[in-house]
Amino acid sequence: MGTITRKREVVLALDIGGTYTKIGLVDKNGNIIGKRVFNTGSKNSFQGFVLNLEEEVGLLKAASGNMVKIIGIGIGAPNANFYTGQMEHPPNFKWGDTIPISDTISSLFKLPVVLANDANAAALGEYKYGMAKELKHFVVLTLGTGLGSGMVVDGKLLLGANGMAGELGHVNVDPEGRSCNCGLKGCLETYASVTGIKRTVFELLGELKEESILRKVSFDKMTGEMIAEQAIKGDVIALRAFEITGEILGSKMADTVAHLDPQAFILTGGLSKAGNVLLKPVVEHMEANLFGAYKGKVKVYLSTSESADAVLGPAALFWQDVP
Amino acid sequence: MGTITRKREVVLALDIGGTYTKIGLVDKNGNIIGKRVFNTGSKNSFQGFVLNLEEEVGLLKAASGNMVKIIGIGIGAPNANFYTGQMEHPPNFKWGDTIPISDTISSLFKLPVVLANDANAAALGEYKYGMAKELKHFVVLTLGTGLGSGMVVDGKLLLGANGMAGELGHVNVDPEGRSCNCGLKGCLETYASVTGIKRTVFELLGELKEESILRKVSFDKMTGEMIAEQAIKGDVIALRAFEITGEILGSKMADTVAHLDPQAFILTGGLSKAGNVLLKPVVEHMEANLFGAYKGKVKVYLSTSESADAVLGPAALFWQDVP
Repeated sequence: MGTITRKREVVLALDIGGTYTKIGLVDKNGNIIGKRVFNTGSKNSFQGFVLNLEEEVGLLKAASGNMVKIIGIGIGAPNANFYTGQMEHPPNFKWGDTIPISDTISSLFKLPVVLANDANAAALGEYKYGMAKELKHFVVLTLGTGLGSGMVVDGKLLLGANGMAGELGHVNVDPEGRSCNCGLKGCLETYASVTGIKRTVFELLGELKEESILRKVSFDKMTGEMIAEQAIKGDVIALRAFEITGEILGSKMADTVAHLDPQAFILTGGLSKAGNVLLKPVVEHMEANLFGAYKGKVKVYLSTSESADAVLGPAALFWQDVP
Repeated sequence: MGTITRKREVVLALDIGGTYTKIGLVDKNGNIIGKRVFNTGSKNSFQGFVLNLEEEVGLLKAASGNMVKIIGIGIGAPNANFYTGQMEHPPNFKWGDTIPISDTISSLFKLPVVLANDANAAALGEYKYGMAKELKHFVVLTLGTGLGSGMVVDGKLLLGANGMAGELGHVNVDPEGRSCNCGLKGCLETYASVTGIKRTVFELLGELKEESILRKVSFDKMTGEMIAEQAIKGDVIALRAFEITGEILGSKMADTVAHLDPQAFILTGGLSKAGNVLLKPVVEHMEANLFGAYKGKVKVYLSTSESADAVLGPAALFWQDVP
C-alpha cells in the first residue's frame, strides 16, 4: 500500500492454544521467517494476553530485522468463529464468554485480521502448505486434549450457517457413554483424543490383569506419548487401548464419509504421533463400516510434523481468500 | 436457440423411483404444466423403461398442446451420480450395475440432461421452489422405503469428491443392530424410514402386551400410513414406535448438525406425513443431543405435499446452475 522498498511480505500468524500461543511470520509460500512461543495465560485475563502478545510480536519483528513487511494477521483459536471474529464460549479459557479477538488484535497492530477455529486453520494449512495440496475434499482431525475437526469441501472451508461447522469431537459414540466437558455423554472426543485414550487405559487397567508399565503411572501424570511408546513396545494394555480408540474413531469416520464423501482424512495432534498402532485399527474399522460406494476410496494420512507446524494454518487463513 | 415463436420454455423433469416414475413439464418458476406417472419396471429391462418413457413423454407433450418448448431434462434417480451421469449399483433395480441414464436419455430426446440422486434433487426442489427458499444451509431427509439425504451448503448442493455425499441412511445407529440391504448392520435407514418403523412395530408387537389394531395386519401388508393413522388415534404400540423412531432419528440429526451447522432440516417422504407424532420426538431428541453452540438454532420442518411434488426437484436440477 504505497510502499516503494521491496520488503518481503509476510503474515503474522497466531496459533492460540489453551496452554501455549505460537506466533510466526510466514510468507505466501509457507516459509516461516521467525517463530516464538509463549504461555497463553488462558486462566488469567485477556488484557494480560494482549500485553504479552504485543511484546512477543515486537521481539519477533526485531529478530527478523528490517526485511519484512507484515500485511495482515491470521489467527487460529479454540471455539473461534470466522463470521463474528470472536472466541465463543471457550470452555478452557477464563477470558470471558465471547472474546473479541479479531477487533482487539486488529486495533492493536492496525492490520486486517482473519480468524477461524484452530482445527479449521489446521485444515487450511494442510491444504495450502501441507499434505492436502492435491486434494479438494478432505477432513483434518486434530487428536489432542480434545478432538477438533476442519473440513474442506470443493476447495473451501466448510463453515456452516453460523461458522460452527465441524464439531466432530461431539458426535455421539454411546448415549450412555463417558461424561464430556460439553455436558453431553459419549462424545467422540471422550474416546478418540489424548484424554480419551488415557480414560480407556485406566478402564483397561481395572478390567484386565496383564502386567504393564502403565500401572506405575497416575492418571494425572500419564501422557499420550507414554501410551504410544508402550504400545509400540508391545505392551498389551497400551495396544488394546489403541485398538479400542481406532475402532471407535474409524467407525465414526465412516459416518463422516457418509456425510461428505471426502478423498481423505488427515490425522494430526498428539495422538497421531503414535503412527501405525493408531492408523491400522482406524483404517480397518473405517473400511468395515463404510457404505459400499465409498469402500476403498478414502485415504487416511498421518500429518507430518513439518506440515503440521502450528503457525502455517493461521498463515494460510490470511493468504488464502477464505472462503 | 434460434426459436422465433415465443413458446413457453419448460424442462422435462423425471423422478425415477423404484416403483413409479413421475414425469412433468416445469417452467422456470416451478409451474407444473403437465404430469404423468407410469410403472418404472425396475425389475425388467432398462430398454423397456426407455421405450415406455419415450411413449409417456409423447403423451405428455401432446396433452400440453403446442405451447411449450422443452429446453432440457432434469432427472432424479436412486444412486445416481451427478458427475458420471449414471445410476451406480442401485440395489432395487435390475437394470445393470451402472446404468448410463444421462447419455441414453440425452440421445433419445436430443436434449441436455442434468442427473442427480433423488434426495439431492429433492433438496434442490425445496431450495428453488419449496420450503427452503430463504435458506442457504439445510438438509433434506427423505423418509420413504429407505432414508435418502440431500444437503445444501452455502446455497450449493454438497456433492463430495465422487458425487456420493449424503448417504445418511447408512450412518451407524448400533454396530450390533438391524441388518441393512447394503450389507452393514445398524444403518439409520433400518430404523428411520417407512420400512424401519414397520420393523420397530413388529418388534414392539412381540415385546409389549398392549392391544393394538396393528396386531391384525401382516408385515407384508402393513404400511407407514397405517402406523401413522393409529399413532394419531392414540394406539400405544404405534405411538411408541414413533417415539423410538424419533429418538433415533433426532439423535443422529444432532451428529449431522455437528458436521454441517445447518439452519434447518426438512423431513419429507411417506413417514413425514405422520406430522407431530414424528416431529415432536425428533426435535426433542435432536435438541437433547446437540452440542451447546447449536442448541435452539436448528429448525425442523415437515415438507408440505405441494413443496414435495416429485417433479420439482428434477426440474430444479436443470433450472439451477448446479453445482
